[in-house]
This record gives sequence, C-alpha cells and structure tokens, in this order.
Amino acid sequence: VAKRPEPRAPVVEVLGTGDELVSGAVRDANFQAAATLLGDRGYDVRGGRVVGDDLEALAGALREAASRADVVVVSGGLGPTEDDLTRDAAARVLGVPLELHGFSRRLLLSEWRRKGLPMPASTLRQAMLPRGTDFLHNSVGSAPGFRFRLGDAAVFCLPGPPREMAAMLEAKVAPLLLRLAPRPPRARSARVSCCGVTESSVGERLADLMQRGKPVRVGTSVSEGVVTVSIRGTGHAALLVGAVRNEVLRRLGADAYAAERVPPGENLVRLLVSKGLTVAAAESCTGGLVGARLTDLPGSSKAFLGGVVAYANGVKTGVLGVPGALLRKHGAVSRPVVEAMARGVRRITGADLGVAVTGVAGPGGGTAAKPVGHVWLAAADRAGVRAVERRWLGGRATVRGIAANTAIDLVRRWVERGTEAGGPRQRGVAQGTVHRAQG
Amino acid sequence: VAKRPEPRAPVVEVLGTGDELVSGAVRDANFQAAATLLGDRGYDVRGGRVVGDDLEALAGALREAASRADVVVVSGGLGPTEDDLTRDAAARVLGVPLELHGFSRRLLLSEWRRKGLPMPASTLRQAMLPRGTDFLHNSVGSAPGFRFRLGDAAVFCLPGPPREMAAMLEAKVAPLLLRLAPRPPRARSARVSCCGVTESSVGERLADLMQRGKPVRVGTSVSEGVVTVSIRGTGHAALLVGAVRNEVLRRLGADAYAAERVPPGENLVRLLVSKGLTVAAAESCTGGLVGARLTDLPGSSKAFLGGVVAYANGVKTGVLGVPGALLRKHGAVSRPVVEAMARGVRRITGADLGVAVTGVAGPGGGTAAKPVGHVWLAAADRAGVRAVERRWLGGRATVRGIAANTAIDLVRRWVERGTEAGGPRQRGVAQGTVHRAQG
Repeated sequence: VAKRPEPRAPVVEVLGTGDELVSGAVRDANFQAAATLLGDRGYDVRGGRVVGDDLEALAGALREAASRADVVVVSGGLGPTEDDLTRDAAARVLGVPLELHGFSRRLLLSEWRRKGLPMPASTLRQAMLPRGTDFLHNSVGSAPGFRFRLGDAAVFCLPGPPREMAAMLEAKVAPLLLRLAPRPPRARSARVSCCGVTESSVGERLADLMQRGKPVRVGTSVSEGVVTVSIRGTGHAALLVGAVRNEVLRRLGADAYAAERVPPGENLVRLLVSKGLTVAAAESCTGGLVGARLTDLPGSSKAFLGGVVAYANGVKTGVLGVPGALLRKHGAVSRPVVEAMARGVRRITGADLGVAVTGVAGPGGGTAAKPVGHVWLAAADRAGVRAVERRWLGGRATVRGIAANTAIDLVRRWVERGTEAGGPRQRGVAQGTVHRAQG
Repeated sequence: VAKRPEPRAPVVEVLGTGDELVSGAVRDANFQAAATLLGDRGYDVRGGRVVGDDLEALAGALREAASRADVVVVSGGLGPTEDDLTRDAAARVLGVPLELHGFSRRLLLSEWRRKGLPMPASTLRQAMLPRGTDFLHNSVGSAPGFRFRLGDAAVFCLPGPPREMAAMLEAKVAPLLLRLAPRPPRARSARVSCCGVTESSVGERLADLMQRGKPVRVGTSVSEGVVTVSIRGTGHAALLVGAVRNEVLRRLGADAYAAERVPPGENLVRLLVSKGLTVAAAESCTGGLVGARLTDLPGSSKAFLGGVVAYANGVKTGVLGVPGALLRKHGAVSRPVVEAMARGVRRITGADLGVAVTGVAGPGGGTAAKPVGHVWLAAADRAGVRAVERRWLGGRATVRGIAANTAIDLVRRWVERGTEAGGPRQRGVAQGTVHRAQG
C-alpha cells in the first residue's frame, strides 16, 4: 500500500501583550500553555513574542506574525482600560472601525446586574469588536475574545488571564482551527515522568532514541529533580509514539513514576489513595514544601494526614521525640536523626508511613563533611525505617525543591516495592549511596 | 536654567531560543529577568521573542530584532549539542565562519581536568565563536557568551540557564552597554509591596498617580495576594521617583509592608530577627506553604522554629491539642479552632508567636456558610490570640497561596502594631471582617 503524502503541520505563532510583561512585573504563562496544547495536537509552534501596550508595536507584531504563520494566537489587551489595545490594533491592521457588539453588551449588562452593581461606562469597551470579526464567548471571565482572517492566517484574540486564556484555547480555538486553518497531520505525544535520577542518566539510557532525525522525537527536561521525557510523532510517526513510550518506560524501570506529566506529589497521593495508605512528613530543610506539594491536589486529605516542620532542633526533640543525645552526637543532618524523625512523625500522627528530610540547604551552614546540598531522607513504616543520603548541586531553592520531590519519590518507591515485590525489606532502598544531580 | 534635552531611551529586544521553550516543556524565565534589569536602568524594553532550535528561524529573528532595536539580548543555544545553534545563526547573519577561540578552549580543558574526566569532543563546540565577535566570560557555567554589532545594534548572546543568564546580564551586559549602545536617560525605579488588601483598593488610593501621561509611571500587579506597586521615571522624572514612592507609602499606610519588591515571608523573617522574636505555624489548608515561605530565606532558623501541618483533624487534636469538642461543635474552619491551633503550636514549640490557618481551599468541600475560599487565620502571643475571617475567589492554588501570604502578613501587622503602637490589644487585628480579593 502506497503511503499517502502527509499534510504539512500548520505553523503557529503566539503573541502576548501587556506592559506588565515587558516591564518584568509578571512572567508570561500563556505562551507555554498555547505551545503545549497546540503542539500536542500536531501544530508546528514556531515561536512566541511579547510586546507592550503600544498600538504601533502591537499592530506591527500582528502583521509580521500573520505573514509567517497559518495561525496567530494573541493573548491579553482585551480589558476595559485604555491600555487594552488588542481590539484597536486588530481594527487598524484590518482597516475597519470598532463597533459595539450587541450580544457582548447584553452579557456584560446581565453580569453586572447579577453583581447588583451599576456597570461603569468604561466596561463597554470590552464589547467593542473590529467590524467583521467573529465574537468568541469567554465562559470563565468577562472579556470576550474574537477571531478574524489576516492574509492567509487565522488570528485568535484571547483574554490575558491564564485561566481564561487556557479555557478558550481548549474550548474555542482548538475546535475552530480544524476548519479555519490547514488541518494538522495526525500527531501523538506522550510524556514519562522520572524522579530520583539525573537527567544525564536518563539521557544515557535513551541516547539512541533521542538522536536527531528520528521519526519520533524524544527529548528531556528537568525541573527540581523531576526529569520529564517528551515523545512526539507527527504523520506516520504518530503511530510509533506508543511503542517508543513503552520502550522508554521499560528502560527507565522504577525510576519512571508515571506515563504522563504529573508532579510527584500528585502521583503519590493517587497511589496512596489506591492502596488505602496514609503518610505524614517530618521536614527540616524543606520547611513545609513536602506537605505543600502533597496537598496541591484536592482530596489529598485521604492520604496525607499532616506532619511536623521541625526547623529548630527543639521542635525535633520536643514534638517529634528525637533524642537530644542523637542530635548532639551525630548532628541534625545525619542518618540516626532522619530515621528518628520519620519514626517520630509516624508515631505522633498515626500514619501508615512517615517520611523525613533534613539537610544543608545553603548557602551557609555547609562543612567539608556535610556540604551545602547534603541531605538525608528517610521513610518509615510499622516494620522499620530506611534512610538514604544525597548530595545535590545548586542554590538553596534548587536543593530544597529537589529534596522535597525526592522525599516524595522515596515514599513512592517504598510503596511500589513493598506491594509489588515482596516488601521493602527484601528490595529496600539503597543505603548510603551518594549521587549527584544538577538542578 | 534651561533644561537640557533628554537622551532617548535605547530600545531593547530579547530573544530566547530552545525547542524546550517552543514545545512548552519549559517556561521562559530569561525575558522577565532581562526586562526587569534593563528596564530599571532606563532602557526601553520593547518586546521579547522565543524561537525553536532552527537555524533559519533564529537567523531571521536576529536580523529582525537588530533592525528594530539598539540592543538585542539572546539567551540559549550555546551548549555543546548539535541543536545549540546560536553561534551558527550569528555566523550566518554576519557572513563569517566559526573559529576556535583559544582562551575558551583552555578554560574548558582546565575545567574538565579539575573534574578529573576526559573532555568529550563535542564540548569543544562551546569554544567556537563567529570570527570577529567578542568573547564574554561566563563565571557561573561552562558555556561562554559573545557579542557583536549587527547594523546599528549591539547583540549579546548569553547562555540559557537562568542563573548564568542573570549573572552575565549583571556582570557583563549592563556595564558594556554604557559604552556600546546609546546611553540611557537617567532612570530610577522603586517598588512598594502590599499584602492583606486587594489590588483594586490599592488602585483606588493611587488613582491620580496612576493616570497615563504622568511623568512618573505608577502601576500595580498582583500575585497570590501580594500587590506590587511599580514606580518608574526616566529623564527629568527620575528625580521625582523618590517623592512619589513616599506618597505611595503614606497613602497605603500599614497595608504596605516594604519599600521594595520582597516576598512577605522574607520580609517577616527579617522583621522578626530584628526584634529578636520567634514564630511557629499551624497549617491546615495551606499544607506547609507558610513554613516553606518562611524558610525560603537563608538564616530563617533564627526566627522560624517550625510548626505542625495539621491536615487531618486527628493531628489537630493529637499534636496541637485542639479540643475534639471544638472541632465537633464548630467545624475545622472556625474561629475557636483556628485560635486553638495558633495557641497550640506556640505552646508545643515554645515560640514567641503562633500563627494558624484553616480554610476551604476547594474545589470541593464548600458549603453555603463556608464556601470555597473561606479561610480563618489567627495569630497568638503570650498574652492572647486574635482571629480574622477572609473569603477569596479563585482556584485551589490561588486560595492556598493568598492564605499563606495573608497568614504571614497577619504576623507582620501584629508585630508592627505591638511594638510601635502600644501592643496588639489596643489596636488588635480587626475581628470577623470579610473582604474579597481576586487572585
């Protein structure tokens, strides 16, 4: 059977607008959201641009993007104030006036009626659309979007607040693109999440899959100790993505914790809930980060009972029951102390599992034997406790972030081994290994 | 005295490169860093752009940026792999070959010698520079930067890792710009940080200062309950920035916690250290965020002893000593419980101050009386305890983030009032007020 030629991937550019972006006051989140959502659907996201609230600059950027791309997504500049200029810039490049859009006006009026407040006159600016453009309903905010054609490009103007932008990308832009722009080639993407391992170790194991020029593209990125493997194929290669993902999972073994992009905390809560287990955390250098990440997800109270932030040694002894003699003899960053912390938090909370972390987050406080980045972690259950020692390079925030994720990953490995391979005692967490990871 | 004409502000564009950016795997942090640093120095940062690892796209973006701007800052694409293409793109737009840069090569060799490892051949790519460009030493990483002139623009190519990029902006780019590009007009900027108040309330109090067209530009942005007021003046207006900042501080009164941009946690730790006071936190819905933020700063152990994450009610009673009867009668999100939590954590840790937070973070668990976003906060000292009730709109992450910052701010107000105005009993924190803020 002859292969049919693949459609080319439509090219997308993303344009963000706002003085708060170019002044550095706010970091743009919308480019990443658009790039992920449209890239996963087979579009060729070529680039993004950010400009200030300047009519000339915005109109120029619109023209340039439309001359290069099949699809232009604009975020921001749709609010009611005079520095919200996306409507004006679109009207200028189209050579049309702004007109009051009746339906938008009625929506705004009814919204303010519900609030029980008179609508400020400036709000009506939000209901002005360039003549001949198509209204896009915003179901999570008050500023409507709109779309139009500029040359060969389909242009979508969306509100700037990330929640509204993301909702409209998903609900409006993605479905409309299938009929307004060239249809993308079949595309599939997958992600695999790893923890407790360096990006270079993952890269070595996947080196042949990651070579350039392969039909399925495999890449890695790392953030706070979480290595994400991205796998993407378009056209005929889309059919191979599942097989490549399975090969990645096979090679990474227990270092891969999920066949999707998910934070370690969210993944662990799901795992614990599915096993009916509870955990509590005793934290020193992470100061509460482990707890914060385990409670990012709603419903985490089924698995996470709470814990103790034992930043001062007095809290380690007084609340967690760590013997003062252990602290004096071994120091706060040591195997005996981290083990006593994990056992202590389990005991006082009544959780099935205890996890503990204590280390030198830096930048001060390091010694030759216990340098900055030196961290002890432990997990405990009814039957016992195991500790691991790690050293990471990086600044304070990096060390704390990796330590929190690694503590969570230690519990994940404990639970997976304990229930799938005959209990942690047989295949216990390696003791005393030192490994280096970059932030 | 006649005013001398002001120099115009040199225009800056920032270009980021990397497939990890356009695929959405990583969120660009370098544009914000460059925009803040150069904007504060009086440069006119007009926009930023992100492109993938594509030689044509990168060369085209370089040409376009240099045609519009006096200064172009490029980040990324200087690593050793074949998808690091910034050197090649610069060589192409300059019409010159790449050449091995001897000093860079020696630096790389000596670095690998220190590691005790043989240098991979691919690493030498990092020592290749386009002929005639100037080497920029990277003191915090291995990939050197370089600079050149393209038309009238000064172009700086810097490494992509945010820590390296930020260090080189500060140490290399900013000083060199003063002789390589038009000198910026005198510029001054200031920031004021507020918490416990809505952005619109700040905006109302500063409305006349924020009008467009004023010589000193005043704007606000909000993140997790922290409202930042930015004040900037260039040219003659630079001299007015200090007076405007003082006026902003006067109008905002106790709602402003710092005359700079600083997170509430870092600010509180400094304040407590200066007063010789310690604090401990009892957290329910924030799950450890308060502790995590109070320990972001090195040296926080002088002020923050630790605390209890009391996510489950069993931890509230068993560890914090909240009477079970209070929980049964009033529920976990109530004044009596939050007060008992604040007192309890103070008692078991021995801290001077206790702070507590309990609320409905959502998205589930809300009721008509206690909807999602309903949060109780309390601060306690030896003499007593005061609680406040708040309601915020927004998703789970927003509510948790605002709650953590507001809990920290509650302690700040307590300490500032207690020591400056006769103790918290006289001018205690308002009880039972409900105020609404947007995330």
